[in-house]
Amino acid sequence: MTTIFDRIRIVLIATSHPGNIGAAARAMKTMGCKRLVLVSPKSYPDADATARASGADDVLANAIVCENLEQALSGCHYVFGLSARQRTIPWPQMSPRECARYAAEQDSAEIALVFGREHSGLTNDELEACHYHVQIDANPDYASLNLAAAVQILCYEMRMASLEQVAPKDNSLPAPVDELERFFVHLEQVIVEVEFLNPEQPGYIMRRLRRLYTKAQPDKQDINILRGVLSAVQRGRRNNT
Amino acid sequence: MTTIFDRIRIVLIATSHPGNIGAAARAMKTMGCKRLVLVSPKSYPDADATARASGADDVLANAIVCENLEQALSGCHYVFGLSARQRTIPWPQMSPRECARYAAEQDSAEIALVFGREHSGLTNDELEACHYHVQIDANPDYASLNLAAAVQILCYEMRMASLEQVAPKDNSLPAPVDELERFFVHLEQVIVEVEFLNPEQPGYIMRRLRRLYTKAQPDKQDINILRGVLSAVQRGRRNNT
Repeated sequence: MTTIFDRIRIVLIATSHPGNIGAAARAMKTMGCKRLVLVSPKSYPDADATARASGADDVLANAIVCENLEQALSGCHYVFGLSARQRTIPWPQMSPRECARYAAEQDSAEIALVFGREHSGLTNDELEACHYHVQIDANPDYASLNLAAAVQILCYEMRMASLEQVAPKDNSLPAPVDELERFFVHLEQVIVEVEFLNPEQPGYIMRRLRRLYTKAQPDKQDINILRGVLSAVQRGRRNNT
Repeated sequence: MTTIFDRIRIVLIATSHPGNIGAAARAMKTMGCKRLVLVSPKSYPDADATARASGADDVLANAIVCENLEQALSGCHYVFGLSARQRTIPWPQMSPRECARYAAEQDSAEIALVFGREHSGLTNDELEACHYHVQIDANPDYASLNLAAAVQILCYEMRMASLEQVAPKDNSLPAPVDELERFFVHLEQVIVEVEFLNPEQPGYIMRRLRRLYTKAQPDKQDINILRGVLSAVQRGRRNNT
């Protein structure tokens, strides 16, 4: 079965710190993303890259090194350029989430996400080689995301978008309502016995307790425990009288 | 104007590499998050933390160091524990996105996001001090997100949720976690007294009860009623002996 990550490549342009290449590879792999393309990295291969990749050395081993962006984008249908800077002539923009949903919907299209240099990002020419400008919304006073952090967010959104179609949760079922009712009867009995509740006016207290336990959605096993506690209280009192 | 980040604290437990503390501070600040709480960090302050924080040294400078998790969570209304591991008794789960939307909706509630150790994450006890277990969906073959990467994703989702936010829900606040803890102590005492619980082996039963009541999110008034019941049981036993 192919996944969205079979058709997504992460392109890093002119990365200066090889440690960031390793950290990006790790970020990619945690989300299931595997295809890394490096355009003119300053130093690669490099021990720092391998160290920071941790268990993602396979992503590094399969990385493709290119001389220019054109080569790196060969065969792509959609190209997204990540950049924190606004441009004088704004490029069509998307948020990471919109980008990921869009990419997930383009079944069988080949997609590239392009990340610029650590300090200066993408040039105008590079951004204009992209269909869309993707900007991670960040703190206006400090938008300095680490390269691997930006890769992490984009790959995370890609993974979320690919999961959105199928998300069945298999929570364990709560106890059937009749069992819950029997518990409430038992509970009322016991708190009357211990003289916490005035049996003439159970209203407010019992209502709050019902709301509380209903919200908790106890399952069968929880109900067994709760009723076990109630029975132990009753046994204790009968033995003492 | 206050933002969601005025009421969110990021809690890091027993971080072993100070560089990760710095990287987490940077990740936080890029998203506008500012309150960092460190529980027994192995080495802090530390030059590595400062170096990796880059321009987020103000987040480090304002970080609070605590001796234990209880201290770190004092005054919180909702606590989310990040953990990659499934548990034998599953805790109520949320995805990062659900968690962020939930947090954004609880207007004026004090929120904690708790992150465990780099290698072993959160203990069961630590997770059980949380209302929800938040799991970042990751590659099943390699789920090893760097600590700062996990912080980045959660803070990113918080920022996204705060931007989506239109009309905050005004739910009544649950009781602060310290009151909930005192209730659990009282509960354990009473169910030992009535001989329902073997004090040598409280594990399974207490864990289920904690999960149940945590899920119910009792407010102050609910806690008063529950503790009133417990006290009535104790009084009843003492009068009878």
